[in-house]
Amino acid sequence: MPLYALTLEYHGGPFVGWQRQANGLSVQQVLEEAAAKLNGGVPPAAIAAGRTDAGVHAEGQVAQIELAREIEPQRLREALDFHTRPHPVAVLRAGLAPPGWNARFSAIHRGYRYRILNRRARPALEDGRVWHVKAPLDAAAMHAAAQRLLGKHDFSAFRAAACQAKSALRTLDRLDVARIGEEVVVTVEARSFLHHQVRNLVGTLLEVGQGRRGVAWPRQVLDSRDRTRAGMTAPAEGLCFTFVRYAEEPDWA
Amino acid sequence: MPLYALTLEYHGGPFVGWQRQANGLSVQQVLEEAAAKLNGGVPPAAIAAGRTDAGVHAEGQVAQIELAREIEPQRLREALDFHTRPHPVAVLRAGLAPPGWNARFSAIHRGYRYRILNRRARPALEDGRVWHVKAPLDAAAMHAAAQRLLGKHDFSAFRAAACQAKSALRTLDRLDVARIGEEVVVTVEARSFLHHQVRNLVGTLLEVGQGRRGVAWPRQVLDSRDRTRAGMTAPAEGLCFTFVRYAEEPDWA
Repeated sequence: MPLYALTLEYHGGPFVGWQRQANGLSVQQVLEEAAAKLNGGVPPAAIAAGRTDAGVHAEGQVAQIELAREIEPQRLREALDFHTRPHPVAVLRAGLAPPGWNARFSAIHRGYRYRILNRRARPALEDGRVWHVKAPLDAAAMHAAAQRLLGKHDFSAFRAAACQAKSALRTLDRLDVARIGEEVVVTVEARSFLHHQVRNLVGTLLEVGQGRRGVAWPRQVLDSRDRTRAGMTAPAEGLCFTFVRYAEEPDWA
Repeated sequence: MPLYALTLEYHGGPFVGWQRQANGLSVQQVLEEAAAKLNGGVPPAAIAAGRTDAGVHAEGQVAQIELAREIEPQRLREALDFHTRPHPVAVLRAGLAPPGWNARFSAIHRGYRYRILNRRARPALEDGRVWHVKAPLDAAAMHAAAQRLLGKHDFSAFRAAACQAKSALRTLDRLDVARIGEEVVVTVEARSFLHHQVRNLVGTLLEVGQGRRGVAWPRQVLDSRDRTRAGMTAPAEGLCFTFVRYAEEPDWA
């Protein structure tokens, strides 16, 4: 049975997250039910590169589905983009996956963006897409603090209590903080992330941006491996899963 | 009675437009009802620089309200930003207006942005903020055609049938078309605009972008002064009112 890779964009607002759950609609369910229409009514099991939480957005999530029969990737993309309506899930690309490829386990690099709207007035246009922080943030201090977290570390201090990963060892390749107009934008890249790792990093860097903590503090939190010492978990709505890379890319149409 | 200028951001989606209408909620009504809470329960009459249509967004609309008593502008901004909730209307700035100043008639320069999402997949994240056009557009050709429309002309070919302006003579100072990633973005500036002028210009330039018409055609439409020759009125949701300038700016707090 042919295995397809799909690049997805979605608005996390209406969903309980990527993964199917009893208490609401998931992106996975929307995709699987759309794919069922092309698969003799049988919903194929979808696997995603990142199991985004409720409220988290994606502009470059990658998922896989296995279908009973071969479909030309462009047609598959069009059909899924149609059948996922009216939900805010768009299918940007489709391609045949290489043998043995897995959307989650074959991924070698992932990127996220976290947007903070840093102004007094509440968001009207970007409501649900940003974390609104009223007090002025020192983005340069946040960036300096962030650079001390790069590299391979035990990120226990920044993982969720519910995190299921066996090891908390991760390699942070990029953690940039930059002011872009009224926004402070955090760009983060790694092979993989722990549950809530990005949101906990952002919540911790925020305290540096507010001047409540020094530039050296987030690294001290990291070294403590103690979750109770880190900052708050930044809200889901500011987070967007931007891209995934694979050693062997699917044959994107 | 003190006259205040306000800079507003709003999402046009839920509104019948700026102006009060019997058939639904307007931005004007939201602002006036919020201001009533600071004005002894009496809603002051709000006047805006641009009477945006239903669905049109703003990131820099300017409005005026006259209040019975003086309020410190920062406090006024905070209070209005609070009382306009939960509607997607944010109050970005407030300031005392100069004597004789009028949000609409004192404006000497206005800017709009029109966003076209130009890709096959439908918008998930930017749904309601962009016009989705699937077929690839030649933004360079659109830009070249646009440059021939600059300057002072009779824009009768691009005005709405319902346009109430006495004269169709307008001076177009800027009409840039640029590709930014998956988007084709139109940036337009003038002292003032006719009703639907920007959306009609975009709908006309689109035909050049699609290759259905040549680069010289929009100018021919302009010279004809014949509305029936222009392209379609581009949908409201791609349009955003970006800024207003005044010869004498209010004393923004």
